[in-house]
Amino acid sequence: MKAVGVVVEYNPFHNGHLFHLQQAKKQSGADISIAAMSGNFLQRGEPALVSKWARTKMALEAGVDIVFELPYRFATQHAETFAEGAVSILSAAGCDTLCFGSESGDLNAFNKTIIFLEENNEKFQERIRFYTGEGYSYPKSISLGFQSLAPDESFIDISRPNNILGLHYIQAIIRQKSSMRAETITRKSAGYHDEHFASATIASATSIRKALFGAVGEIENIKQYVPETTYQQLINYRDQYGGFHSWENYWPLLKYKLLQSNASELRGLYEVEEGLENRLLAAAASSESFQQFMEYIKTKRYTWTRLQRVCLHILTNTSKNTMKTSQKTVNYLRLLGATEKGRSYLNYKKKDFSLPLVSKLSAFSDPDIELDIKASRIYALGQTGKGQEQLLAEEFARPPIMLKS
Amino acid sequence: MKAVGVVVEYNPFHNGHLFHLQQAKKQSGADISIAAMSGNFLQRGEPALVSKWARTKMALEAGVDIVFELPYRFATQHAETFAEGAVSILSAAGCDTLCFGSESGDLNAFNKTIIFLEENNEKFQERIRFYTGEGYSYPKSISLGFQSLAPDESFIDISRPNNILGLHYIQAIIRQKSSMRAETITRKSAGYHDEHFASATIASATSIRKALFGAVGEIENIKQYVPETTYQQLINYRDQYGGFHSWENYWPLLKYKLLQSNASELRGLYEVEEGLENRLLAAAASSESFQQFMEYIKTKRYTWTRLQRVCLHILTNTSKNTMKTSQKTVNYLRLLGATEKGRSYLNYKKKDFSLPLVSKLSAFSDPDIELDIKASRIYALGQTGKGQEQLLAEEFARPPIMLKS
Repeated sequence: MKAVGVVVEYNPFHNGHLFHLQQAKKQSGADISIAAMSGNFLQRGEPALVSKWARTKMALEAGVDIVFELPYRFATQHAETFAEGAVSILSAAGCDTLCFGSESGDLNAFNKTIIFLEENNEKFQERIRFYTGEGYSYPKSISLGFQSLAPDESFIDISRPNNILGLHYIQAIIRQKSSMRAETITRKSAGYHDEHFASATIASATSIRKALFGAVGEIENIKQYVPETTYQQLINYRDQYGGFHSWENYWPLLKYKLLQSNASELRGLYEVEEGLENRLLAAAASSESFQQFMEYIKTKRYTWTRLQRVCLHILTNTSKNTMKTSQKTVNYLRLLGATEKGRSYLNYKKKDFSLPLVSKLSAFSDPDIELDIKASRIYALGQTGKGQEQLLAEEFARPPIMLKS
Repeated sequence: MKAVGVVVEYNPFHNGHLFHLQQAKKQSGADISIAAMSGNFLQRGEPALVSKWARTKMALEAGVDIVFELPYRFATQHAETFAEGAVSILSAAGCDTLCFGSESGDLNAFNKTIIFLEENNEKFQERIRFYTGEGYSYPKSISLGFQSLAPDESFIDISRPNNILGLHYIQAIIRQKSSMRAETITRKSAGYHDEHFASATIASATSIRKALFGAVGEIENIKQYVPETTYQQLINYRDQYGGFHSWENYWPLLKYKLLQSNASELRGLYEVEEGLENRLLAAAASSESFQQFMEYIKTKRYTWTRLQRVCLHILTNTSKNTMKTSQKTVNYLRLLGATEKGRSYLNYKKKDFSLPLVSKLSAFSDPDIELDIKASRIYALGQTGKGQEQLLAEEFARPPIMLKS
């Protein structure tokens, strides 16, 4: 049985994801597909629209066979760490191929870029330092630094977010000495950050989320961009838990957390660096929404994503120590759900897995799992009443979702 | 100019307080009255119904001439520390008399009890240890211990809360070598904890608060028990800030604070002792209201008040270190408001004050003031929208309230 791995957030699962999944299976010739999926908080430092359980259902119903959780310690990080975590999961789970979507779509261009960067590493790092010194954000400095080395069009454009992720997947495969093969598929039309619908059936997750937070009834506007199963799961989630999650749901908690902290406590938290704590404390009392707060603290030096991640680690009270950045691989395979085919694969292969397979939280203990549990509890506080109660209860007690075919 | 001091919470100011104030002035022959008043959080570990500013207005309008804030570090403490702080304020402000209300009303009985306790201190402490060892709460053990020493009726009944406070006022005056004279007045009818109206014009603050948290319109039910000025201030506050403050307003924040903390972080907070942190953490996720949470964590060993104080220090993130229990007196006289007569007194006497007079927060710095500011900001989070915004703004910027006659 051949397996293809994908790295996903599915926030929510849409037609672009479906296209990628089907192409990945086809192109790799795999019998089954395995997703390393972020939990309740995502790489851009945001809460997922709906819980990891609802997103697991969407994934299984759309054709993913096995969903493993990418732990908080990796899922909420910059591209390099995110990629290391995801690669270590898919590799440990026996995937033959990792297939990622990219703006480039050309694996040769990726390989050529990696070799170029290795050969010019010293010069490249120097350029990055130059641009950060000029006050540019780190991602922007990487992109400017690379451009300034003037590679031709046979290289990938590393200012594009999915190209950057792809680069790190390949580098992680090399570093981890994984036997996985990398493949890439060109992403369909919509850019990662696009806020507007640009095609008849493919839209970015960003534009879909934007539509969902509009007026009641606007959920119908996204119908053409997502599989029917996603559409139903979204409606079910809204009705069962009380709505979708956004940063605004957590703003009263973040504001409180900031107002009750002092600068030294904040400095102990992950990614709070370079006097940022004073900026955050000064803005907290006078901000009435998360949006307003972010606009107060935004500068050229920090990307919106970086600042959202800072806010997230403050919200979850995640210390520098907890994030143990020196340890770059995942310790366990936490199963969120599987189809029948996925279960056969697990039964057949799990004895060969290089990491423990975790189906019941009560049977396993690990600092990264503790962090995932804490993050999920805080995620639950984005709802009130019964919705919150259910979310709090299911994190610890819920068995993986088993989809019957 | 002779001054009489009173120690108050005025939560809210009612007819019983008015009676006490008028009697205190009369009995002491004072020209002016000075109140040491708790800020936004109170001795029982609760948020005040309305802010310290609204309560200062009530006090001035009812005949108090000067209101100083009893800092958080004293206001939210057991009777001994509470009394030490209040006595140090009134003494530094030049009061000739401290006049407290008590169930006993007999100063001789107080003095006799203090001498008896000093002479039998060793035996008394032993009895207290015996009863706490039996699992009784500390206040209950004091009361049982005293009873077991079998003093006659010429002593005060130290199971009554206002007698206990009075005892500590007198002891603090002695310990601080203050030149203030103590006086006491029998409290009018209503017991401190009474929940039901028991007289035509005098009701406990507890029963008044209970009525205020009932259905809309019930505010009229308290009209006969409070001065017209209090009634108006309450209506103004509700309309201007959005409602009255109760622990339930802060429950989502306390729940979040607990869910994002680990046991060791909680142990660093004031009054979290003897494994209480594990009890609190276990109850947090499954409680849907503050009331329910308190019922989960309540045991014979801890009084409701003690547990509410623990919750309060967790809510305000107040560490054991911050509370510096070894330093028993206040560092400053923070002026919340004054009448014209009060202002004359301040102008005339302030050069003799043994502590700095603080009218503008920006002109003074002290760790206890920092704590007061933090507590007030968190108090503000009990409201939403404009009400919260106003409360956040006024703590730092607001000058003392100057009542014109």
